[in-house]
Amino acid sequence: MKFELTKKYLEDLEAQIERKEEASIQEFFNQLHSADIADILENLDESEAKFVYELLDEEKAAVALMELDDDFRQGFLKLFSAQEIAEQVDQLDTDDGADLLGQLEDSDKQEVISQMEDQEHASEIIDLLRYDEDSAGGLMQTEYIIAREKWNVKRCVIEMRKQAEEVEKVYSIYVVDDEDRLMGILSLRRLLFAEPNALINEIYSSENIHYVRTNESKETVAEIMEKYDLVTIPVVDMQQKLVGRITIDDVVDVIREEAERDFQMASGISENVESSSSILKNTRSRLPWILIGLAGGIMSSQIIKGYESTLSFIPSLAFFIPLIASTAGNIGVQSSAIVVQGLASNDFQMKGIMTRVGKESLIGMIVGAICALVIFGFSYFFGGDDKLAITLATSLFVVVLFSAVLGTLIPLVLDRLKIDPALATGPFITTANDIIGLSIYFLVAYLVYF
Amino acid sequence: MKFELTKKYLEDLEAQIERKEEASIQEFFNQLHSADIADILENLDESEAKFVYELLDEEKAAVALMELDDDFRQGFLKLFSAQEIAEQVDQLDTDDGADLLGQLEDSDKQEVISQMEDQEHASEIIDLLRYDEDSAGGLMQTEYIIAREKWNVKRCVIEMRKQAEEVEKVYSIYVVDDEDRLMGILSLRRLLFAEPNALINEIYSSENIHYVRTNESKETVAEIMEKYDLVTIPVVDMQQKLVGRITIDDVVDVIREEAERDFQMASGISENVESSSSILKNTRSRLPWILIGLAGGIMSSQIIKGYESTLSFIPSLAFFIPLIASTAGNIGVQSSAIVVQGLASNDFQMKGIMTRVGKESLIGMIVGAICALVIFGFSYFFGGDDKLAITLATSLFVVVLFSAVLGTLIPLVLDRLKIDPALATGPFITTANDIIGLSIYFLVAYLVYF
Repeated sequence: MKFELTKKYLEDLEAQIERKEEASIQEFFNQLHSADIADILENLDESEAKFVYELLDEEKAAVALMELDDDFRQGFLKLFSAQEIAEQVDQLDTDDGADLLGQLEDSDKQEVISQMEDQEHASEIIDLLRYDEDSAGGLMQTEYIIAREKWNVKRCVIEMRKQAEEVEKVYSIYVVDDEDRLMGILSLRRLLFAEPNALINEIYSSENIHYVRTNESKETVAEIMEKYDLVTIPVVDMQQKLVGRITIDDVVDVIREEAERDFQMASGISENVESSSSILKNTRSRLPWILIGLAGGIMSSQIIKGYESTLSFIPSLAFFIPLIASTAGNIGVQSSAIVVQGLASNDFQMKGIMTRVGKESLIGMIVGAICALVIFGFSYFFGGDDKLAITLATSLFVVVLFSAVLGTLIPLVLDRLKIDPALATGPFITTANDIIGLSIYFLVAYLVYF
Repeated sequence: MKFELTKKYLEDLEAQIERKEEASIQEFFNQLHSADIADILENLDESEAKFVYELLDEEKAAVALMELDDDFRQGFLKLFSAQEIAEQVDQLDTDDGADLLGQLEDSDKQEVISQMEDQEHASEIIDLLRYDEDSAGGLMQTEYIIAREKWNVKRCVIEMRKQAEEVEKVYSIYVVDDEDRLMGILSLRRLLFAEPNALINEIYSSENIHYVRTNESKETVAEIMEKYDLVTIPVVDMQQKLVGRITIDDVVDVIREEAERDFQMASGISENVESSSSILKNTRSRLPWILIGLAGGIMSSQIIKGYESTLSFIPSLAFFIPLIASTAGNIGVQSSAIVVQGLASNDFQMKGIMTRVGKESLIGMIVGAICALVIFGFSYFFGGDDKLAITLATSLFVVVLFSAVLGTLIPLVLDRLKIDPALATGPFITTANDIIGLSIYFLVAYLVYF
């Protein structure tokens, strides 16, 4: 069923909850997709959400829980007993179960695991909890379908039926040897078209198979799945044994998060916040860069103070301080953004730092020359002061060139040092370029006038 | 086969090309995945790339062509005759074929189409070219598998075999009625487990089916597939007739592009550039915002000029111009980034503008108060001037509050006006806040001192 969340619907629902109309709420919600249910729950009070939640079918409820926003879920789970959480985990796929348990305090985790009904499922989840959540192991689920090389198609279908009960989405079958080592992949389509007596050995493909190891980073997993257009990827351990699979929907989340993180870094936000996050978290995530910027501003003030006598001699220099600083910042942000993006999409693998900086210098010179021309024209015709016009044009040209090179160089160097290059975008580069830009400006002024 | 591109490998390959060792190049390349081939080609000269390209298997060559970077492909295609391009399009899926043709001049397009061997394939591609490339129609392919409600499983498998030849990736089957209207979806897994005589009617699911219309925007398609974790989605026309399907790999590209575009906008880049783009394109994409920033800087200079007498009376006011301007910019960028991200992920559907602005004002007050305290401390203890300390602290508090509110309000208002809110991030908000911040600063100074 298609569902669109409206303010009107929410008001009606709140009235229904008020009147405790359990039957009609239940009937309506159990037709909805879990993702839509999650959207609705997030817009209710926690106690209202709990009321609705308890009316849901078991499996739908568990899946909806995982569709909730992290922050909301964290608060919502506090309303549940360990026993209730255990019931949810019993319904979830192993990867989701591990994610949910990962959100709990250690003592609660123990308690929930001990209350789970399906102890085999529980031990699989405990296995997954060992992996770093940012690795392939942390992303994978242990629900997948295997076939052995020596089976025939008929046997494979029978075995699949047994396994398929716990695997929600089947796109391909992993073929393993007797030691459970991954040998290749068999597509469902191939299986469907094969003769019942054909051996798996004869129909699966073992060439050009993509897989990852448990310790691979989630960014690399995303890169591989994106590059080779994969819908699932098998995960193997150090001995090449198949231990899990990762599905594209989880990888889409990784891609989204990565892009959001870069965007937030470039905007000077240091912690993953959403507009719905608390005021405290919001403030905390923003304060570090603002204070660094403030420190930069204080440094700038000291540089200008150093040129106090120049400034008192030519007061109109002060008018153009924001122009120089903001142009330096804008250029630096552009350059670093292009580099960070290039690094993220592996554009540079073959190109050296110097080639890149050389190209950027050329762009900087062109843009700098245009800016210089514009500002020379303005200050000459409207101000009528040649020296000021020369100072502005010269320093703007140098500042633009310098900012472009610096904006390119810093992220490239950080990347070489294995530090996230996105750190060098946004406020960092703006602050650094403000300081350098002003130093150049006053130095040029000094040279021109004295 | 796993392949990693290295500088060493490229040098060896270039030597092989030089020596025209066709057989060994051919053998090596035809084991590679098309995505890897594309990576290699992009690192060769166009003529070297053409030499290698002509040695590839037909299908691999066509797919590799589509894996190339847009800019590189545009140039590379110029080396091909219409006849040669037509041969590539014959090999491609309809969606890729349409994308390739879409990159050509209109006259070349005609020429290529007339040279295509498979005229049915050609007419399907021509149909696709009618759709806006940013709509579901522009994203879809006409390769998909259908089943009719009244077939039984045996017949369905036979018919599928006929259809499956041209459909590379099969995950599910679309069930249609006699008028080709979409009725529901049948998963391959369900089909595999069904009795041969069971009717399709009895086993397919028609509830909670997600589909889109041809005119749906690609962003909405991505949102739906991401929200409901879909691997493919059927596309229907106005009469509910099935006309195509969209696969997740194309949607992953949409998600990636969207994120990159927001990041570039926030960094003041107005056109989609990559680090490998030409110097001209690079300059063109960067100049508009730099010039707008420059205009902002000129406006700031006029504002400061307006307070010339104040400035000559208290010269140290000039020292803190960059501090005020950069803090205003930094705060504005943070606020607008959070709003733009919230809008992109539909976080606000239920919340009014005023709630959002109210919350942001509170955050602005907290951050503003902290900044005011820091700068008051600095200027009081190091400068020893009470009036300056009061001016700085008061104006910084007001500027932060104002910038936070403006940074929130502008993108929200743009969004209401159906203008891309990302326009209001980065240089725009920095420039606007510079001007407003300085006006506040000098006004406060005037009030404090006179």
